[in-house]
Amino acid sequence: MLKKVNIKDEANAVEGLYLYKKVGLLNSHVLSVVQVENRTLDFHVHEASDELFFVIEGAFQLETEDGLLPVDAGEFVVVPKGMRHRPVVGQLAKFLMIELAGTLNKENSGDGYQD
Amino acid sequence: MLKKVNIKDEANAVEGLYLYKKVGLLNSHVLSVVQVENRTLDFHVHEASDELFFVIEGAFQLETEDGLLPVDAGEFVVVPKGMRHRPVVGQLAKFLMIELAGTLNKENSGDGYQD
Repeated sequence: MLKKVNIKDEANAVEGLYLYKKVGLLNSHVLSVVQVENRTLDFHVHEASDELFFVIEGAFQLETEDGLLPVDAGEFVVVPKGMRHRPVVGQLAKFLMIELAGTLNKENSGDGYQD
Repeated sequence: MLKKVNIKDEANAVEGLYLYKKVGLLNSHVLSVVQVENRTLDFHVHEASDELFFVIEGAFQLETEDGLLPVDAGEFVVVPKGMRHRPVVGQLAKFLMIELAGTLNKENSGDGYQD
């Protein structure tokens, strides 16, 4: 039976920051939601997968060698595989993430990531 | 240089119904936006790709062998590859679609689809 997913409700239901909740699968890609506040991850590279950040609520900046790209609610950005990047988050922001299964781990996504 | 995409703005900028505008790529998957009104496609199957429908604005029903699943703004549904389905759209709805490149064509997506 098919299920629909309300991304804002799913993000709001996550109790805590930096905890990725898997909400869907699409051809071996994982869709997850996460709430983040006041966190700048280390620069890192995903060699095997592009990575999509969609901002459900709030805003953040995506930092690359080219500088900081501000991304607001209702917007997405795709980081191509191999591109060095890190998300810079100030005030609370809620995200939908999409990337190939196995791309995220504790090292590149914060201690809260669970396989 | 990275680009961000506002999905509502992109959908609103499409001049006409049933015209898919490609707004991003993610690991050989195409992200596109489309506006649809009063259209029920024929039942069809995508053998090679799951298909994600995200409702940006409005609502629709996803029809499968199990019946009609209503999907509202802010919600997504993933149709697994191989599942017979069709979208049923009444009042104007705006979608973000994601599926493997080559999945959509004029036959399964209406005459307005352009490769």
